[in-house]
Amino acid sequence: MEKVLFINGMGCEKCEARIKAALEAVPGVRKAYASRIARQAVAITEDYVSDRALVEAVAALESFSVEGILPGDLRPDFMTRIENKELADEFIEAQVDLLKKQIGGGKVLLALSGGVDSSVCAALLLRAVGDQLTCIHVNHGLMRKGESELVLKVFRDEFGANIIFIDAVDRFLDKLAGVSDPEQKRKIIGGEFIKVFDEESAKLSGIRFLGQGTIYPDILESKDGIKAHHNVGGLPEEVKMELVEPLKLLYKDEVRQVGAALGLPDTMVNRQPFPGPGLGVRCVGAITRDRLEALRESDAILREEFALAGLDKKVWQYFTVVPPFKATGIKDGKRAFEWICIIRAVNTRDAVTATIEELDYAFLKKVAERITHEVPGITRVLYDVTGKPTATIEYE
Amino acid sequence: MEKVLFINGMGCEKCEARIKAALEAVPGVRKAYASRIARQAVAITEDYVSDRALVEAVAALESFSVEGILPGDLRPDFMTRIENKELADEFIEAQVDLLKKQIGGGKVLLALSGGVDSSVCAALLLRAVGDQLTCIHVNHGLMRKGESELVLKVFRDEFGANIIFIDAVDRFLDKLAGVSDPEQKRKIIGGEFIKVFDEESAKLSGIRFLGQGTIYPDILESKDGIKAHHNVGGLPEEVKMELVEPLKLLYKDEVRQVGAALGLPDTMVNRQPFPGPGLGVRCVGAITRDRLEALRESDAILREEFALAGLDKKVWQYFTVVPPFKATGIKDGKRAFEWICIIRAVNTRDAVTATIEELDYAFLKKVAERITHEVPGITRVLYDVTGKPTATIEYE
Repeated sequence: MEKVLFINGMGCEKCEARIKAALEAVPGVRKAYASRIARQAVAITEDYVSDRALVEAVAALESFSVEGILPGDLRPDFMTRIENKELADEFIEAQVDLLKKQIGGGKVLLALSGGVDSSVCAALLLRAVGDQLTCIHVNHGLMRKGESELVLKVFRDEFGANIIFIDAVDRFLDKLAGVSDPEQKRKIIGGEFIKVFDEESAKLSGIRFLGQGTIYPDILESKDGIKAHHNVGGLPEEVKMELVEPLKLLYKDEVRQVGAALGLPDTMVNRQPFPGPGLGVRCVGAITRDRLEALRESDAILREEFALAGLDKKVWQYFTVVPPFKATGIKDGKRAFEWICIIRAVNTRDAVTATIEELDYAFLKKVAERITHEVPGITRVLYDVTGKPTATIEYE
Repeated sequence: MEKVLFINGMGCEKCEARIKAALEAVPGVRKAYASRIARQAVAITEDYVSDRALVEAVAALESFSVEGILPGDLRPDFMTRIENKELADEFIEAQVDLLKKQIGGGKVLLALSGGVDSSVCAALLLRAVGDQLTCIHVNHGLMRKGESELVLKVFRDEFGANIIFIDAVDRFLDKLAGVSDPEQKRKIIGGEFIKVFDEESAKLSGIRFLGQGTIYPDILESKDGIKAHHNVGGLPEEVKMELVEPLKLLYKDEVRQVGAALGLPDTMVNRQPFPGPGLGVRCVGAITRDRLEALRESDAILREEFALAGLDKKVWQYFTVVPPFKATGIKDGKRAFEWICIIRAVNTRDAVTATIEELDYAFLKKVAERITHEVPGITRVLYDVTGKPTATIEYE
């Protein structure tokens, strides 16, 4: 397990090296590193190693003492909430130092979805270890409009990161064809993601570290048994690589602060929450390519109009849903039999309960007008007026 | 064909009898009757009989002249719009007179759906010929909540009409099971209705007349080829009985005036428009009994709340729709996978275009709260924000 020691007295590289050596000399400690900037030492230990053994190893050295010791996935009470650029910069400096210590000259692999967490994680790793980092971005066909393009633009073009871009659209959609059960859909998407990622990482050699954008709520929910640990949604429990999770003690708002301080664009840092299976859960029932396209286009229009109206800063989450049924309508003066498009826009503090945003009718009508006129296959737009409970935020 | 002659000079029963006899003496006239109260004579003629022959037959009599002559399904320009109780009473008096003349001592059969038109037609026939009228009310399982009960309460209990009540719920729903195509559904409902009606009327003997609540827009739309003539939605073209259509020159608002003057309750007279196939077109796709029940209950709640809020007097048409797909939700703290319920509320002058009613969010939330808590199987409520076009008012 990973233990973090908060240490008094570290002042130079020599101090770091002495503490590292002292900890690694304790029987059962597999690896250790120390950072004077983070004022921490990290020890990767066998389960049976006691805190006391670690404290004594440090105390045996001259001029150092252990202030506290915590499991690596427990946020210390005294940790300051990162609420501004200065604190974010401080966090970044300390983490870059710790990451350099942990990774050394090794190679790191990261699944970069384009979500807030994986994007900030990538930017932080890039700052720490540069081109030792390789990102894999998988387009599974369930991304929102323009998302893969944004990932490439920011990370490849602007940050100069190593990115392997996998177009797996056909692979995912073929596998999902005809599958209407929500659980089954999720399993296919998660399982296929692991397969693609494994296949691609097997082509690379000498990768020792696996970066992950795990954040503190993931850890907490994992402890509560609410969801599986890995925020990517299904990486195998038995990874051969060592995990690197620099954001694992941060809350979402802190991750956004850190992302902004790292120079990520606002659209990426303040992206709304997006479910692991992407648009898959909003293309309700058995996914078809044409309906998925209608969903993607309607969602893009909604996001555009939300931004124009300034609602993107106000509303917690907003998106469209296109369920698998048709209703009559009229297009170009003729009878049409097409899908309906549902608008969902909710506010929440904790995602446990949620209330709907009371959108103006003028706004709703404008969005409905655009969607029914610009998106092939849609003649009707509806607004979901149900809070959580009894509805959930998503549809599957 | 039927021709209506507007006649000057009729003053007594003897006049009526002379005109009737003169018209019936014209070769090709099959039947005629005259009413001094309606100041009209009606002649049922072969196609080849000219207006001139009829005018001359009347002119040959002393002291009568023909002011005008029109096909029986053409509303004369000079006909006053029935806008108040006095005019409605005048219409009723004239029609009762004409109906007595037409029907004499014969028996009349009427399919009484409970809609405005058939209800007013029934009440008018009842006034004219009393228990010579037999009404057949078929509950096809696609009625709104409480409708069959209201028909029986008003016509059997209060008006003392002869009503044959047919519970054909199983018959219709069994036939509709698994049928998702809207056209096919309509055909089954229309076809089955004719079968049930034919079977029942075959059990009766000596019926010479068939009453129908045809109104003037039906005639106009029939001429325009928009819809089939019979507003019941599919009675056979070749009926052996003679048609009795006392409302065929009236507009909807006039029919309501007449209904009120006849003493029909407000809920019946001011009933919103309801499609021929009933809830069948709102239980989108293949109808199932449980979803149909959820639809009926949610519709009843919506109507109740519209009435409470006074919106029933303001909004042209309002109803719920329950499409055949499920979404996740939460009921009693547990995950639920249930239907969505759509609210539709529109205003229109001509039904060619329609705009949505901008319902208050407080109202929408109250309705959503009631529907999701009172109707089994529903966890979500949505409001359709699309006008016509591009949506239609109904969903199928």
